[in-house]
Amino acid sequence: MPDFMQKWGEYTARFEETLKKFCAGLDDCRPQILAESLRYSLNIGGKRIRPTLVYATGELLGVPCEAVEKFALALELIHTYSLIHDDLPEMDNDPFRRGKPSNHVVYGAGNAVLAGDGLLNCAFEILLEECAKGEARISAARFIAKSAGVYGMIAGQSADLLHENDKGADDGVLQFIYENKTGALITASVVAPSILCGGKYYSELSAFGRELGFLFQLTDDILDVEGDFGSLGKSTGKDQKEGKYTAVGLYGVENCKIQADLIASKCAGILDGIEGDISFLKDLVYFVRTRRK
Amino acid sequence: MPDFMQKWGEYTARFEETLKKFCAGLDDCRPQILAESLRYSLNIGGKRIRPTLVYATGELLGVPCEAVEKFALALELIHTYSLIHDDLPEMDNDPFRRGKPSNHVVYGAGNAVLAGDGLLNCAFEILLEECAKGEARISAARFIAKSAGVYGMIAGQSADLLHENDKGADDGVLQFIYENKTGALITASVVAPSILCGGKYYSELSAFGRELGFLFQLTDDILDVEGDFGSLGKSTGKDQKEGKYTAVGLYGVENCKIQADLIASKCAGILDGIEGDISFLKDLVYFVRTRRK
Repeated sequence: MPDFMQKWGEYTARFEETLKKFCAGLDDCRPQILAESLRYSLNIGGKRIRPTLVYATGELLGVPCEAVEKFALALELIHTYSLIHDDLPEMDNDPFRRGKPSNHVVYGAGNAVLAGDGLLNCAFEILLEECAKGEARISAARFIAKSAGVYGMIAGQSADLLHENDKGADDGVLQFIYENKTGALITASVVAPSILCGGKYYSELSAFGRELGFLFQLTDDILDVEGDFGSLGKSTGKDQKEGKYTAVGLYGVENCKIQADLIASKCAGILDGIEGDISFLKDLVYFVRTRRK
Repeated sequence: MPDFMQKWGEYTARFEETLKKFCAGLDDCRPQILAESLRYSLNIGGKRIRPTLVYATGELLGVPCEAVEKFALALELIHTYSLIHDDLPEMDNDPFRRGKPSNHVVYGAGNAVLAGDGLLNCAFEILLEECAKGEARISAARFIAKSAGVYGMIAGQSADLLHENDKGADDGVLQFIYENKTGALITASVVAPSILCGGKYYSELSAFGRELGFLFQLTDDILDVEGDFGSLGKSTGKDQKEGKYTAVGLYGVENCKIQADLIASKCAGILDGIEGDISFLKDLVYFVRTRRK
């Protein structure tokens, strides 16, 4: 997939520039430890899947990257805040993230709570700034806000916490956790550009986002069993140890791989209903299915 | 102050109704523990100072309470999230809030982190909904967002954490903590209505909010020494025990009372520069100065 990798490289390079500007904007932020802790988690790597999805979906619908830039940034800030809070001792208790010590390991749990709060707040400051540019932007911002909130990502995190050590297999619960914890923000990454285009391919992109989110979480769970720390940059084997409610825990890793293949096909099928150059998004599905990190 | 207490009662009764509707709107939120933990912290009392300030400033400027309702709500949600996170073991580690067990004592620290995140997110969902109603509302929402963020309240919390056990008296540091940790959101409560009125008395209300916020934090610190758990509903004597950087710790409680009186006069003086019925806000300054809880 040379074209895919090149385009991927362009998108991520572009996003790193955007992030650099955002981080430079924190120069006046006091105390320094606050700015530092925000920058730390934003700059310890990450696949930038959500910004890439925003750019690629925007381009597919005829919107240039500049026009969706702030949405890409806000989504990555929200994602990063959720990881900082998720890694806290009282949550997933993970001392590593992206191969480096987690935010709370470096700055202490108190500062990590504030770093997460700060990033979420920054994301909304950015979205509110966009609101001045017209109604479509307000609608897109509201969609992202709802996806991140107590009817979206936070609901998924809460259910994830609630069902730790729950041994009863319940597809409904699993679906709820996956759709919200991971799916909501991934869906927002492809639906926000659609809203900016007056809802173009809204239902297709909603369905695509939901399936891709599920696929992403499924491969995450598979990697927790089969991945290695060197590639993943975070602890493995943790789901079982911590009694997490995952598809792998409930149905076994081999069944989950079959399921992942089915969902990947479903994603590709949904994309076929969209006119335009869908090749990048199709390759991205394959990339998510086969990722090692 | 019979008029003041009656008006205060009207404002808070009004706000409790607004809050009741918001809480009822969480009925569909899953898992139930998430909705419950949000409702718990919103409904364990609280003086509702920020919503009252929003209403009273709105009315002073000629805006009816309905028109500022959502801003009052958003500010109280932001305030409540900050208390939940502030009470966490890694922050102020306070097992009591408003006479009841803190959120993390009831629901566990993990759920308390999510409850705080959830309330902050809800506040922004409400503000984004307001944005559809015109530019003044977008500006007011942006002011609140900035006040709550890494150049406002979160900066203050971070500095507060940083200067624990710091024995060197530095007025600049103290000013920074008070202005941001407490002052920023109190200022936003009186400035947001001004922005809705095209910036009417903006500089007076900014100055008033800053001083009132300082007064509020100063009386908070005095009460930490002189208050009792029965009235305050939270642990006392904690500032000294935890080495908090407070005016009382640096200058002693008697000096702080003199300072509080001076600031209260300053607040009243600023209000004199505003045409209209300033009596409620003047009485509120006195109420803050002499409060026992």
